[in-house]
Amino acid sequence: MKNIEHIGIAVKSLEASNVLFSKLFGAPPYKTETVASEGVKTSFFKVGENKIELLEAISETSPISKFLDKNGEGIHHIAFEVTDLLSEIERLKNEGFTVLNDSPKLGADNKLVAFLHPKTTNSVLIELCQEIKP
Amino acid sequence: MKNIEHIGIAVKSLEASNVLFSKLFGAPPYKTETVASEGVKTSFFKVGENKIELLEAISETSPISKFLDKNGEGIHHIAFEVTDLLSEIERLKNEGFTVLNDSPKLGADNKLVAFLHPKTTNSVLIELCQEIKP
Repeated sequence: MKNIEHIGIAVKSLEASNVLFSKLFGAPPYKTETVASEGVKTSFFKVGENKIELLEAISETSPISKFLDKNGEGIHHIAFEVTDLLSEIERLKNEGFTVLNDSPKLGADNKLVAFLHPKTTNSVLIELCQEIKP
Repeated sequence: MKNIEHIGIAVKSLEASNVLFSKLFGAPPYKTETVASEGVKTSFFKVGENKIELLEAISETSPISKFLDKNGEGIHHIAFEVTDLLSEIERLKNEGFTVLNDSPKLGADNKLVAFLHPKTTNSVLIELCQEIKP
């Protein structure tokens, strides 16, 4: 794993939280993006080399809807950047981790992503992501 | 704010979680440290330029004890590195954030730290930290 690519934070209103986090970081989000397959609207803030992703649900079946119902707003996941997602999935399965999707799927921000089941990671939802090269 | 300095994860057993996260990152923690004032034992992992801090409570009055009782294991806080903690505290108070300790206190890893109240940050506990120069 190369570094923390971003931290995902579940919010009820992207509009209100964009204002809040713009004050926190002293700069507005550098982009917003809708990921229809995950049922989310997202915005991204840059903090040094790292990113913070805010996630608002746009459908009731979105994982973010379910998270907000259960936990309220707060940190949703940590994403680590990897060079080779398929070999990292294989390595982590061999180490005993449960990978939620064996086949990488398309995430926000031009990434292939896979998630580790929080039951095998001290209740921390971990995303592995690999940039899709043009 | 310069970057994500570390992410703090509350765990029940530092010993067991050190094994788990060593497998995840492919390397053992580079140091462990007890912070008596906070009632915690900690271990640190390096992931690229970032760090992951695991926190185990060593007293029942530790904030980590209370967190585990209420939420179970999981992500506890995000720490952002700042250059000048006092001026950053002042800036954020003026922006409407509630700072839990106006006077910076001594944290783990040779840092002066202050926390923002999660009620003003979408339920995310945010630590600001400034390295203590020798």
